[in-house]
Amino acid sequence: MFAIIMAGGIGARFWPASREHLPKQFLAITGDRTMLEETLARAERFAPPNKISVVVGRIHAELTKRILAGKPVDVLIEPRGRNTAACIGLAALHAKRVAARGVTEDEPMAVLPADHFIADVESFARTIRAAAEVARDGAIVTLGVTPNRPETGYGYIHTGAESGESLEQPVFRVKRFVEKPDYQTALGYLSSGDYLWNSGIFVFTARTILDEIKACMPALHEGLMEIERAIDTPDYEAAVERVYDRIESVSIDYGVMERTSKPIYVFKADFGWSDVGSWQALYELRGSECDEHGNLSLGDSMPSGAMIVDAKRNLVFSNTERKVALLGVEDLVVVDTPDVVMVARLDRSQDVKRFPESLKT
Amino acid sequence: MFAIIMAGGIGARFWPASREHLPKQFLAITGDRTMLEETLARAERFAPPNKISVVVGRIHAELTKRILAGKPVDVLIEPRGRNTAACIGLAALHAKRVAARGVTEDEPMAVLPADHFIADVESFARTIRAAAEVARDGAIVTLGVTPNRPETGYGYIHTGAESGESLEQPVFRVKRFVEKPDYQTALGYLSSGDYLWNSGIFVFTARTILDEIKACMPALHEGLMEIERAIDTPDYEAAVERVYDRIESVSIDYGVMERTSKPIYVFKADFGWSDVGSWQALYELRGSECDEHGNLSLGDSMPSGAMIVDAKRNLVFSNTERKVALLGVEDLVVVDTPDVVMVARLDRSQDVKRFPESLKT
Repeated sequence: MFAIIMAGGIGARFWPASREHLPKQFLAITGDRTMLEETLARAERFAPPNKISVVVGRIHAELTKRILAGKPVDVLIEPRGRNTAACIGLAALHAKRVAARGVTEDEPMAVLPADHFIADVESFARTIRAAAEVARDGAIVTLGVTPNRPETGYGYIHTGAESGESLEQPVFRVKRFVEKPDYQTALGYLSSGDYLWNSGIFVFTARTILDEIKACMPALHEGLMEIERAIDTPDYEAAVERVYDRIESVSIDYGVMERTSKPIYVFKADFGWSDVGSWQALYELRGSECDEHGNLSLGDSMPSGAMIVDAKRNLVFSNTERKVALLGVEDLVVVDTPDVVMVARLDRSQDVKRFPESLKT
Repeated sequence: MFAIIMAGGIGARFWPASREHLPKQFLAITGDRTMLEETLARAERFAPPNKISVVVGRIHAELTKRILAGKPVDVLIEPRGRNTAACIGLAALHAKRVAARGVTEDEPMAVLPADHFIADVESFARTIRAAAEVARDGAIVTLGVTPNRPETGYGYIHTGAESGESLEQPVFRVKRFVEKPDYQTALGYLSSGDYLWNSGIFVFTARTILDEIKACMPALHEGLMEIERAIDTPDYEAAVERVYDRIESVSIDYGVMERTSKPIYVFKADFGWSDVGSWQALYELRGSECDEHGNLSLGDSMPSGAMIVDAKRNLVFSNTERKVALLGVEDLVVVDTPDVVMVARLDRSQDVKRFPESLKT
């Protein structure tokens, strides 16, 4: 099967470690490798390297090629970010092309955001394989995460009855995709037990998703066809540029999932999933690596960690050679980079994006 | 009159801005100039430049000469720190020598620590001149600060009856110098109204202090005489080295003031004095420069200050070109230097010296 890694995100949530030129998927925050490399390693469990595509923005193309040097994966370049519908459509065109070279044209493709954390990668691969079996027959399949808090930062999937099994994993019908709720609504979703978080991970064939884009987003489909005609011609880059210049920026959730008349199926993602949406989420994710006072030092230049006196429950991230010293402080995130040092309350870390926003204005 | 600026301190209290090679007196923390330069500017109000000596440790000699380039002041070099008694004794030898070149041999000399802050420099100069009038007759004179809190970090001066006036300023007899008290004792001193903080500022003639060193610290006096014989000979540096190698490290307070049988007089230092003993003390000293939320940005590379979102009552000091960003934090001191960034609770800032101590062990 195919794997499409969407690495086009421009994350500001790990500022100042993440920047426009170095978003989260290019940071080694969840382990020793960048999140992109970890995503690729997961994809290699179910897809051969020549069926893996990484979709990135042009400004990250060089960085991506450097990180993936020696890997025979395809790097597809978007001239600018146009959200997930365009990204997935572009990847589907290329999957069709590779498939045409010999295999079946209707192989499933798993769409994977490059900046998610997954704890149990073996269980993850099993779920993707089970989803692929369902997708192979032309269905749209998604993965949903059982909520453990009334999160207002995610979309939700309203789940219907169990409709069977695939590779011993239960499959549910999707009643509806719903957008990020307010807090009261999220509380209701959580207590009903009928809702899952939308993980952003999908499995379908290229044919299926291109058909659905044609049905739900005809303008995008027309653009994709223009690009397809230019594949393997000297006009390819100019065609992508022209099309990306005029198409709307729409997510696959809103553009297709909320509109399609096709049935959608969902598997429960029970493999330990996090979109690592903030410094606080990262701190919680790697909590087991804290010292006895709850302090966590991350970053590749800090083999000996921070200097700590009477400090508790702090996250220190550094990508410099400098020492970070903490005295008496609690519940902070301290991020040290070559040109910015940030000190924030961990429970305010979802607001760090206000700094790059304020620098733009 | 003479002025002796004692710049030999090796401060760790402003770590990581202050280091062994760059102690507090060489930092521009109380204003745009280094504390040494501010001390020199105060001394120039009552002493001609050729009667001002700056005493520094050898490791700071080059830095001192660079800072004072173009000033015709004497820089006296100690091979290593041996506390204030030796420092003052050495300076007195040189004052005698300069005095011998034409002026009277019994001119008063004011001894000034190089790392104190003084708010009203005109009032300071008036007090020094008044003290000099008393010292000219051979007395030991000191300046005491009216306490406003039960400080346990200073020595105290037990003050007796008013014994007269000098230049319209009241003079008091000193009953006793006492060392740093415990908290209960300090509370008693504060409420009694009979105690002043020992500012470390003294005025006496070279003859007086050398006589008292002879009486109270004969070993030091013998060493000073050995150095005096070598002045203006090729053996001078070696003589200082030999003597500093063997003498004890004793403060003038303990070595002379607590032992002398001579009467000591004290003037009240009503000119706004601080020894700027911690980052917190600095924050309080410069409180009027805070923004509306109590945040204070200091350091010569931060013309536009820190980037602040919902943060209150923080001190940011930087001697780098980097930006410091604060989000949601309160009552912190953040110090950014080329090789260390420190984040501490302001009210724990007296403990920052534990970092350089831990680096030594």
